[in-house]
Amino acid sequence: MTTTYDLVVLGGGPGGFDAAVEAAAAGLKTALVEAAELGGTCLNRGCIPTKLWLGATAAVEELAAQTKARVATGEVRVDFAALQSRKDKYIAATRKAMAQRLAQLGVDLYAGRGRVLDAQTLDVAMADGPQTVGFRHLLVATGSRPGSFPGLEPDGAKVLDSTGFLGLAQMPESLIVVGGGFIGLEMAQAAHRMGAKITLVDALPRLAGAEDAEVGKTLESIFKRQGWDIRLGVKVASVVTRGEEAVLTLKTDEAGGSATGEELTAACALVAVGRRPNTADLGLDILGAECSGPGYLRTDENLLAAPGVYAVGDVNGRMLLAHAASHQAHYVVRRLLGKATGPYVSGPVPSILYGSPEVMRVGLTAEAAKAQGDTVLVSRAQLIANPIAQAHAATQGFVKCVWREGRVVGVTAVGADVSRMVVPAAMMVQAGWTRDEAEAFMFPHPTLDESLKTALLADKQSA
Amino acid sequence: MTTTYDLVVLGGGPGGFDAAVEAAAAGLKTALVEAAELGGTCLNRGCIPTKLWLGATAAVEELAAQTKARVATGEVRVDFAALQSRKDKYIAATRKAMAQRLAQLGVDLYAGRGRVLDAQTLDVAMADGPQTVGFRHLLVATGSRPGSFPGLEPDGAKVLDSTGFLGLAQMPESLIVVGGGFIGLEMAQAAHRMGAKITLVDALPRLAGAEDAEVGKTLESIFKRQGWDIRLGVKVASVVTRGEEAVLTLKTDEAGGSATGEELTAACALVAVGRRPNTADLGLDILGAECSGPGYLRTDENLLAAPGVYAVGDVNGRMLLAHAASHQAHYVVRRLLGKATGPYVSGPVPSILYGSPEVMRVGLTAEAAKAQGDTVLVSRAQLIANPIAQAHAATQGFVKCVWREGRVVGVTAVGADVSRMVVPAAMMVQAGWTRDEAEAFMFPHPTLDESLKTALLADKQSA
Repeated sequence: MTTTYDLVVLGGGPGGFDAAVEAAAAGLKTALVEAAELGGTCLNRGCIPTKLWLGATAAVEELAAQTKARVATGEVRVDFAALQSRKDKYIAATRKAMAQRLAQLGVDLYAGRGRVLDAQTLDVAMADGPQTVGFRHLLVATGSRPGSFPGLEPDGAKVLDSTGFLGLAQMPESLIVVGGGFIGLEMAQAAHRMGAKITLVDALPRLAGAEDAEVGKTLESIFKRQGWDIRLGVKVASVVTRGEEAVLTLKTDEAGGSATGEELTAACALVAVGRRPNTADLGLDILGAECSGPGYLRTDENLLAAPGVYAVGDVNGRMLLAHAASHQAHYVVRRLLGKATGPYVSGPVPSILYGSPEVMRVGLTAEAAKAQGDTVLVSRAQLIANPIAQAHAATQGFVKCVWREGRVVGVTAVGADVSRMVVPAAMMVQAGWTRDEAEAFMFPHPTLDESLKTALLADKQSA
Repeated sequence: MTTTYDLVVLGGGPGGFDAAVEAAAAGLKTALVEAAELGGTCLNRGCIPTKLWLGATAAVEELAAQTKARVATGEVRVDFAALQSRKDKYIAATRKAMAQRLAQLGVDLYAGRGRVLDAQTLDVAMADGPQTVGFRHLLVATGSRPGSFPGLEPDGAKVLDSTGFLGLAQMPESLIVVGGGFIGLEMAQAAHRMGAKITLVDALPRLAGAEDAEVGKTLESIFKRQGWDIRLGVKVASVVTRGEEAVLTLKTDEAGGSATGEELTAACALVAVGRRPNTADLGLDILGAECSGPGYLRTDENLLAAPGVYAVGDVNGRMLLAHAASHQAHYVVRRLLGKATGPYVSGPVPSILYGSPEVMRVGLTAEAAKAQGDTVLVSRAQLIANPIAQAHAATQGFVKCVWREGRVVGVTAVGADVSRMVVPAAMMVQAGWTRDEAEAFMFPHPTLDESLKTALLADKQSA
């Protein structure tokens, strides 16, 4: 007999797990279908292991900054095997806790790949054969996987994607990173701290291409001073394993530039050129769901991909961030419970690049605001004027506020520890603070956060 | 001829300096009278040098935590002479920038001690003789200085106050700290990181006595594991220099306990038993100003100590924090400009203990809220459940929210890096967030800040 659930969730990453927990806690009969591990990319192959690497190596950059300031000397040696073991144990323990939580709440867990049969039924390919699962509502939260381009395919030998890289048994002595986005930059920083010589290549003319252009320039300047070989605005013809090395060949510059077929080599290459949604073979087309170009599930203002079928997280392509998935999941469950009736509103979505430096952004960049045709003003503060930045001898960077009609609509920052300003910035953007509101608020002194205040109160200029 | 100013400010610390700058920028004819250095205690002998010490030594605790987790090894050697030199240069450069800013804005700087002659005139004891300065409004921002008790007087040899300690040429190998408040705890942490063996003594039964009792217990547990000898609930008979040592003698326990006249010795002793206001010999009594018991200037709801005489910062005893002084100063200038008409409202005042662990608080502790006779609920989160705390292998600590009538009225936290939650917590307390508002807000993942969200959303219990 087929069991029918109020809600069946496809995918146990942050969005799917949070939806299942909240739905079950509210009394909905709930099932979770997961083909691999609970926790999804974020826990198993993404944000969490990367942050464990960065956290474990934080002393390296703290010490390097004070050494450059001639205040301290010393060395930090990271035991990579021990770190990997600690990471694996933490992830396994977290998965176990997640499974316990689901069991506690009475969520049925189906370990297998799910595929829609019709508007009420799903087929799950379990280890012991297919199983049919009935649903009143379906939530698709199948996430995404590392993408690649022809010639850049990870081969599992010396050319790896982020998943392969996080699973390494030994940190390579040198690393080519293809892709200067947040994933590539976080992993490159962790590798650098553990002794790898970094070569970073990107087709875009700047690092962190989705961010403010000044952010990219600041990152480039800091990483170059850390000794990275950074090649921007170049195209990659191929990355392959050759013997014990990874070999990257740059495309011949058709305009006759200098980078004609140059080869770069390293002990390992990491391809971090974006992610692709997991939408293949879900059977959703028979329910009328459609995909955009790269395969993202199209969702309406209520996050519906088809009647009775919601999609949240990476798979809908709105915002490839774990907390965006969780936030969307919360909306969907509230909607099922009749508590949310209007369209989904994300509010300002915060994003963070971890490391030293960090990048944070909430809301619009000046560029994006201008592209909307608005009159945009910006105000800014340099970290060098802040005593806490001075105390950590990490003074390069800035905070920039974007204003529209007298209200702050975006905040961007780059520099050591700037992620600590992302939550207040998100609250300010959400509330639409004016300069007067910022002035009336008591920031604690001395804090790095005062750079945000200084930026908010600084003279505004045309963007 | 006596020059008469719209505003004369007594004292160039954070409150006085900010008031002078803002008043002059708004067009008021302004003078600043400072007997010692611009920047006051905070810049020269308080928060800033302490944070420079803690920032410069941050790698020590980051490495120690990972070493304990068996992930890293190594050592960090701080060159104390180089650190002191860097600190002195930074402070001198900041003072210079402050003087330039005042000059730029046309603020007249009188270098000398000011004393009120009558309701319109001040006498300033300048190096080249007394000078008379006229005022329409006077702002007293003379701050505070380290306090002591009989038997605990710093002698400038091996028994020092915070000022003397920050001026040391060499970090002692062992240190007795008398006083487990924020000043003593920050300095003890910096000294510990630079190799000093710490003995800490306080008459109160817990560390950080003004904070939540659980905060004190957590601090005690963490510092004890760092090897500190902590003696709480004991009274000190005397601290004196004897030869090349500081010798602290505990009071004979009248109840016949064990601590009968025990002697503790160290290379140096720091007395950090609170601060005393600088109100002596200001001549304010002739204008009708009154002082409370310990000498704090009494101020009314408009921060007036006497007709035409405002008092801000440590000297009025409302809140001995630099940012509180600046916030009060801002109010006074707005009042002089006719922009603020109602009484002074501080809003939630954030406070931070820096180091590893840190402490942060905004608004009421559960204890204080209960003492007001309210029905108080608390909700909490443990840092051990947070992935960023795990990444830094610093998992001891918690976030606690205090609720009254469904709104958050206080947030307290202890643990590594918890100061990053103080600004969002202050914004939430100021806005009086409900649980629903916290739930709707998108916190970034993974962040330590999510511990604040977890605490806000946790089940509430009687305080």
